[in-house]
Amino acid sequence: RTANGKRIPPPVVHYYMNNLTSTRDPVAHRETVLILTPLARFYQEYWDNLLALSYPHELITVGFIIPKNREGNAATAALQEQITKTQKYGPEKNRFASIIIERQDFDPPLASQTEAERHKMENQKVRRAAMAKARNSLLFTTLGPAISWVLWLDSDIVETPPTLIQDLASHEKPIIVANCFQRFTDPKTKLPAERPYDFNSWQDSEKAQELAAAMQPDEILLEGYHEMATYRVLMAHMAEVNGDPKFEIPLDGVGGTALLVKADVHRDGAMFPPFAFYHLIETEGFAKMAKRLGWAATGLPNYKVYHYNE
Amino acid sequence: RTANGKRIPPPVVHYYMNNLTSTRDPVAHRETVLILTPLARFYQEYWDNLLALSYPHELITVGFIIPKNREGNAATAALQEQITKTQKYGPEKNRFASIIIERQDFDPPLASQTEAERHKMENQKVRRAAMAKARNSLLFTTLGPAISWVLWLDSDIVETPPTLIQDLASHEKPIIVANCFQRFTDPKTKLPAERPYDFNSWQDSEKAQELAAAMQPDEILLEGYHEMATYRVLMAHMAEVNGDPKFEIPLDGVGGTALLVKADVHRDGAMFPPFAFYHLIETEGFAKMAKRLGWAATGLPNYKVYHYNE
Ligand SMILES: Nc1nc2c(ncn2[C@@H]2O[C@H](COP(=O)(O)OP(=O)(O)O)[C@@H](O)[C@H]2O)c(=O)[nH]1
Ligand SMILES: Nc1nc2c(ncn2[C@@H]2O[C@H](COP(=O)(O)OP(=O)(O)O)[C@@H](O)[C@H]2O)c(=O)[nH]1
Ligand SMILES: [Mn+2]
Ligand SMILES: [Mn+2]
Repeated sequence: RTANGKRIPPPVVHYYMNNLTSTRDPVAHRETVLILTPLARFYQEYWDNLLALSYPHELITVGFIIPKNREGNAATAALQEQITKTQKYGPEKNRFASIIIERQDFDPPLASQTEAERHKMENQKVRRAAMAKARNSLLFTTLGPAISWVLWLDSDIVETPPTLIQDLASHEKPIIVANCFQRFTDPKTKLPAERPYDFNSWQDSEKAQELAAAMQPDEILLEGYHEMATYRVLMAHMAEVNGDPKFEIPLDGVGGTALLVKADVHRDGAMFPPFAFYHLIETEGFAKMAKRLGWAATGLPNYKVYHYNE
Repeated sequence: RTANGKRIPPPVVHYYMNNLTSTRDPVAHRETVLILTPLARFYQEYWDNLLALSYPHELITVGFIIPKNREGNAATAALQEQITKTQKYGPEKNRFASIIIERQDFDPPLASQTEAERHKMENQKVRRAAMAKARNSLLFTTLGPAISWVLWLDSDIVETPPTLIQDLASHEKPIIVANCFQRFTDPKTKLPAERPYDFNSWQDSEKAQELAAAMQPDEILLEGYHEMATYRVLMAHMAEVNGDPKFEIPLDGVGGTALLVKADVHRDGAMFPPFAFYHLIETEGFAKMAKRLGWAATGLPNYKVYHYNE
């Protein structure tokens, strides 16, 4: 409204979506990036890495979806404190174009949320359906017509290079995912070591296809469980010592810890199925749905990001 | 930026999505409505009816997606003229909260676009996949976290009551669809008559299930073709003379000509599959996908809207 209280004629916004590019050199083309993070717990390292991203921050919008429970309230408070520091008091070049925080009830899928509990096979379907809905809700409400890329980045990814966006985009793939590892102290040697963490990035196998064919319509295949050996080729196991970080492999399933997607893939309709889709769910189902839409997924076995170790 | 060129600290927007309602009395609760129209041709009657909607216009955002071809350019020009009249020069109460126009290339699925050509069975899959992508693109880029309802309204629906939104919302259903008819002059009697137009709203049949079971994964079931009798119960044929416009029926497939959806249904991930989903596509696939997400569809056989007659 104007000063005299009259409503200002509302704007008509025109978007020419054909002029929107998503190229291997997104900085040069001033391509906008939407970083999406479902967030249950806040990690300072996540925020520090976000801030350290060398991609021009004025081209980045960040969106969070945070459960509306006690844990979520604590995470929101910690996040808000960092946001205020950056967006209000920090150097101008650090400030992001905009930040969106969504609070939402989820039927809490599990009472306990320890890593062991989260990963129990019988809990996975319910939990990942809830995660899929959280991702969809965040995606559907933040995407906008002027976004070139969507970077899915989990809040518990505590090590990522500042060039993450440029590195992933340089491959110019519709869907590309880093290899998610976890640092730990080897109990035998007491030395620092690392191990694969995310088993959702894989190449399909005949055995997995056979398992799927024998399943009930609502059943899903899960990776990383002895009870259900799929013989899929897991990207987690394909990292090589001193391997080329640019080395690409085709994937049939992807994880969502650090996943770059051309916005057009999502705009065509590729979302995170919260139901069994070809016996796949969430990020793995997303890769399958994208493939049905004509978009292939790529993995970088030697390009690592690291997950928090509880 | 401020007058001295300094960047203003960008806002952090918080959304409490639990506080968002979608009730049977949306006006009283000041619920926001997003009207989405894929638009290939502009019809003055469509616009006049939009303007005549008695739902408070300041709670309505309208989004269009228009192909970037010659026909689309003409439609955009005609639309823009009406928008300027309303939003700039019209009475304040007529103005919508905002209007978004997206222009986009589609691989033009068919050279000719006459009604006869559009409805040829072998053309339907390609055409409806393209329509599904247009709907998804429009949906994914306009939805936002503060929207309560999405009204899908085709641009060639030339008769709708001013109370359309309130009437449909009053049933408080997650997905509800009007019965789409077409007026014509009876060639025998030369008298005005009407006939069913949209055959995408139906109740499933055993026969259709059997047909689907025998199909290749990528094949789709289509309604309204003699070659493929499904024996589904079509809402188009369930309208009764002087029938109660509030009479509800459960549906398994829906059409998109005048379709009201609770925004949460879309936010959960329900979109318009551009691929065979349980052998269904586009709006029919949407109903199936919503059902997989736990949301049922309802039809109003006696609540009619009318499609343009070419
Ligand atoms: N909004 C929301 N985010 C969640 C929820 N559960 C986990 N997350 C976040 O989603 C991402 C993946 O979940 P996480 O529990 O780390 O999965 P895991 O590492 O595969 O066991 C992380 O960024 C979490 O902070 C939830 O219920 N709601
Ligand atoms: N953006 C876009 N809209 C389209 C396209 N084709 C049709 N439409 C619009 O989508 C709606 C449904 O299409 P229409 O051709 O009327 O389908 P029919 O009535 O079922 O034959 C109408 O509002 C059309 O104006 C297209 O290629 N792109
Ligand atoms: Mn995690
Ligand atoms: Mn039509």
